[in-house]
Amino acid sequence: MDGVGDISVPQLGGLTPLEKAKTPNLDRLAFGGALGQHIPVATGITPGSGPGHLALFGYNPVEYLVGRGALETVGIGFELRHGDLAARINFCTVDSTGAVSDRRAGRISTEKCTELVDALKSISVRGVEVLIEPVKEHRACVVFRGPMLSDSISDTDPGLEGEKPLDIVAKTSGAEHTVDVVNDFIIQASGILKDKTPANGLLLRGFALYEEIPTLVSRYKLSPAAVAIYPMYKGVASLVGMKLYPSEPADIRGQINAARKALKDGRDFVFLHHKYTDSAGEDGDYTRKVAEIEKFDSALPDLLTCGFDVICITGDHSTPCPMKLHSWHPVPVLINGGPQRTGWSARFTEKEAAGGSLGTFKACELMSLLLAAAGRLGKFGA
Amino acid sequence: MDGVGDISVPQLGGLTPLEKAKTPNLDRLAFGGALGQHIPVATGITPGSGPGHLALFGYNPVEYLVGRGALETVGIGFELRHGDLAARINFCTVDSTGAVSDRRAGRISTEKCTELVDALKSISVRGVEVLIEPVKEHRACVVFRGPMLSDSISDTDPGLEGEKPLDIVAKTSGAEHTVDVVNDFIIQASGILKDKTPANGLLLRGFALYEEIPTLVSRYKLSPAAVAIYPMYKGVASLVGMKLYPSEPADIRGQINAARKALKDGRDFVFLHHKYTDSAGEDGDYTRKVAEIEKFDSALPDLLTCGFDVICITGDHSTPCPMKLHSWHPVPVLINGGPQRTGWSARFTEKEAAGGSLGTFKACELMSLLLAAAGRLGKFGA
Repeated sequence: MDGVGDISVPQLGGLTPLEKAKTPNLDRLAFGGALGQHIPVATGITPGSGPGHLALFGYNPVEYLVGRGALETVGIGFELRHGDLAARINFCTVDSTGAVSDRRAGRISTEKCTELVDALKSISVRGVEVLIEPVKEHRACVVFRGPMLSDSISDTDPGLEGEKPLDIVAKTSGAEHTVDVVNDFIIQASGILKDKTPANGLLLRGFALYEEIPTLVSRYKLSPAAVAIYPMYKGVASLVGMKLYPSEPADIRGQINAARKALKDGRDFVFLHHKYTDSAGEDGDYTRKVAEIEKFDSALPDLLTCGFDVICITGDHSTPCPMKLHSWHPVPVLINGGPQRTGWSARFTEKEAAGGSLGTFKACELMSLLLAAAGRLGKFGA
Repeated sequence: MDGVGDISVPQLGGLTPLEKAKTPNLDRLAFGGALGQHIPVATGITPGSGPGHLALFGYNPVEYLVGRGALETVGIGFELRHGDLAARINFCTVDSTGAVSDRRAGRISTEKCTELVDALKSISVRGVEVLIEPVKEHRACVVFRGPMLSDSISDTDPGLEGEKPLDIVAKTSGAEHTVDVVNDFIIQASGILKDKTPANGLLLRGFALYEEIPTLVSRYKLSPAAVAIYPMYKGVASLVGMKLYPSEPADIRGQINAARKALKDGRDFVFLHHKYTDSAGEDGDYTRKVAEIEKFDSALPDLLTCGFDVICITGDHSTPCPMKLHSWHPVPVLINGGPQRTGWSARFTEKEAAGGSLGTFKACELMSLLLAAAGRLGKFGA
């Protein structure tokens, strides 16, 4: 449950959404399992979604940095290679002065986006291969493939309407070549787009050099699968070697079906991503966050019939409704299955988690607890 | 109390042995002291006895690796030197085909073992000194002393009866010389043993290169003592500079007498090892584990008369009865003495420990808490 952790919400009588929600199924799992809480990155540090998930999958997010551009690109099924430079494209509307009048070009359709991307495929930049793919609505991805690329360059997205796109700047020496490459691309793209409507410009952001990281297959001898709906989470799952299973329909029921199929295929680890707790938190909508938790809870019995030996329920970070933002607060963790100290808690809440038998640990240590619970780890030393 | 931590035992109504046991003396110590829990090696990682104890004594067990062969050798009073290669010997019975028919040669007497060891003392291997000592019953130790030895070699013990002893293999390049040395020893030993009965063969395992580690004397300015009954624990205690005090009789009463003597001798730290909680856990015998905890509890008043300023009660790891194995679960810790937040808990249990004032910490940090409680640590910075 993305962003599941929260803080006291005055409008809920000082309770958190997890405390407020009616969760009979989570309650049962909590009583029969063990609770604890994880620190996503480091004490007091608020993680983005990328580091948050990498940490859950066992990667110290300070050591394994993967930029958003790379995550989204991988998330649409693009096979990045070591050294590729990926970035996110927003098609936008620019006015006659060159200022951005709509950063999303009225959220053009995905079909329209695909047409524009096809037009941009004629671009050729010396010394690199340019690969462009549509994502959704006004969003696309570009990948520059070639030697000596750097992601130490600034975005062109001004972040505000009424401002002109920014010039790309090298943030470290050695990135000048990349600035030239990207500028060449932007000039050609602007020429191609200038007479289109409503999307007559483009903004680039989230430059990320893709560096291969060891997968869950090699690190943990797992055969992992992911059932996620949003590209970003598909991306991070894919990066660490999870096979993506499509969810039909694209909701929790479809995700559970996909999880079941993954297990039948012999997969022994499934990451199921429930986005909406985070979205509600970002909107500050505590009533909806309570409802999303309850919706997840009501889907749990179906998930439990899939036949997992060990189930873990947690989030990549907290997204407290009163903050409308990701936060640094510890995230509650529930592990049901394997040998555990059980019967300690009758609820899955932040408070019960803080006093749980698993204690407080770093998110990147969670995989060890799961593998241990599943009997997958040997003994250290004699 | 070795392996004291446990998990919910269904046959105990979901309680752990610590929860089930009647422990009036531990309860009093808990109420007047502080509780917490330690992680032996790392989250989710199950430690062997060596790393588990090294961690308790303040050594990061990932940094200080000591193999079982070295621990057992030191445990019988052998003074290992830096660079020595130690291994465990099992005298065994081999049949006419060369297969191992009894890995323990019918558990020959210690006297018989000593005779065999004496016979093997005639062995001479070029370039190294070979030192052999009996341990107990069919078990002995061998130490190879010489330059350039490696412990990256495999065991000869097939682990199963009906199989032939395995060939020794170098696991890293550079270990070939050691393979030659050990093979030379095995060939000579096999020749000497071949007409004996019932022990007409030998198996080698647990090769461990001894690398000196800084002692508690130098690290903590302690004058430490150990009262342990089993060679393995004497070994690890000896390695870190503890003086071994013999226990007469070889039980908890004898150990307390020895602890008292150590204090009288001016020793200011005593490690008392209570083995039987672990043995009961390994056997899955929850009733016996409860009884062993109660037996330890009933000996406590006598221990308390020794005059310790600070008493700590914990284990090197958990050995949950339902698992019959060491495990990764946090281990409860009780510290009584020194300035503490007291009165939090009326029991010494896993659950009280998880919510105790000492929090959750790494085992190798425990010594700092004990030294602090004893007023032995200064202030960091001005």
